[in-house]
Amino acid sequence: MSKKGILMVISGFSGSGKGTIVRNMMEKYDNYALSISMTTREPRQGERDGIEYFFVTKEKFEQTIEEDGLIEYANYCGNYYGTPRAYVEEQLNAGRDVILEIEIQGALKVKKRFPESLLVFVTPPNAKELKKRLIGRGTETPEVIEQRLSRAYEESEGVEAYDYIVVNDDLMTCVEEIHFLVEAARRAPLRREALIQQIRKELKEFAKGAE
Amino acid sequence: MSKKGILMVISGFSGSGKGTIVRNMMEKYDNYALSISMTTREPRQGERDGIEYFFVTKEKFEQTIEEDGLIEYANYCGNYYGTPRAYVEEQLNAGRDVILEIEIQGALKVKKRFPESLLVFVTPPNAKELKKRLIGRGTETPEVIEQRLSRAYEESEGVEAYDYIVVNDDLMTCVEEIHFLVEAARRAPLRREALIQQIRKELKEFAKGAE
Repeated sequence: MSKKGILMVISGFSGSGKGTIVRNMMEKYDNYALSISMTTREPRQGERDGIEYFFVTKEKFEQTIEEDGLIEYANYCGNYYGTPRAYVEEQLNAGRDVILEIEIQGALKVKKRFPESLLVFVTPPNAKELKKRLIGRGTETPEVIEQRLSRAYEESEGVEAYDYIVVNDDLMTCVEEIHFLVEAARRAPLRREALIQQIRKELKEFAKGAE
Repeated sequence: MSKKGILMVISGFSGSGKGTIVRNMMEKYDNYALSISMTTREPRQGERDGIEYFFVTKEKFEQTIEEDGLIEYANYCGNYYGTPRAYVEEQLNAGRDVILEIEIQGALKVKKRFPESLLVFVTPPNAKELKKRLIGRGTETPEVIEQRLSRAYEESEGVEAYDYIVVNDDLMTCVEEIHFLVEAARRAPLRREALIQQIRKELKEFAKGAE
């Protein structure tokens, strides 16, 4: 009987560095499996099907919804985004910890469906730093940057729903911190059920033997 | 404005090694303060007032109860045991993390009164090991050992109320694990309130500036 893995959601402000964190977690530790989202939006330059996303048609996506093949999905700006169920369950059952890098709406749906999931929100140390990082990319127009800041403000309204808020000040420190949060989650009673039952059984036998 | 410390309860089966763990946590890390319980029982050989316990009279104990001077208290075998409030609050307000080494009944009372407290239960890897450790001390009669095992069985019924269950297989690993659980708790949203508010405020200002 293998132990089930932990389902973890990593969200964060645009510019929080969550993509880099996830990539480094995958490289540094071998217990993680990364879920790949399904989307109906067009691939951007350099994006590959099955790597960044599974790119599918609207018909295929809606068929997957009907078949209950998604853990969560949402529609942003006319495009569907969702988390395929099969891969996640397969990996969890194999004892691997699965990372979902998704937005807050999806995160809340995951928590509702899997109350034992671990929700981690990544933030820069402060909003000035967040703004600096957004501008620092040098790839976005001022309008897009301001849009993202407004969006970040909206997102900040929901962070209390997460289990943990991690500050990304130093990348590798942040990666290690998140890894420790997963290790901590393994010590919650609901993940110790087998050990608890075993100890209870043995103690009962010892106590009986003493009568 | 200083950050409040974390109130942590460490419980565990008799023979789980929790006393040694607490001692090592105090030696290895400098963020902890150890709460000393108040009791009406007689000091045993070598026990010093204000070190192992505050030894007081029944009258003094009951007066302290009346003055709401205890976070929790209980009566075992005709003796009172309780946790003095003043020291705990003083240390928490100074930003230190306070360790209470108390039993499950006390732990549940602490959690009710301080929902943000962290409850850790220490267990040997299995009941056979627990029995071996109890016998290994060589100081107890078979009757006492069997009593403790029965008691351990009763205690095992309550462990789901704890936030974490830690296996004491290797002492220093266990000490580090518990320390990481405290560090994890610092990242919960309720302990990030100041950061969250600050980021919200700054993001709101940025978003306004963009209008």
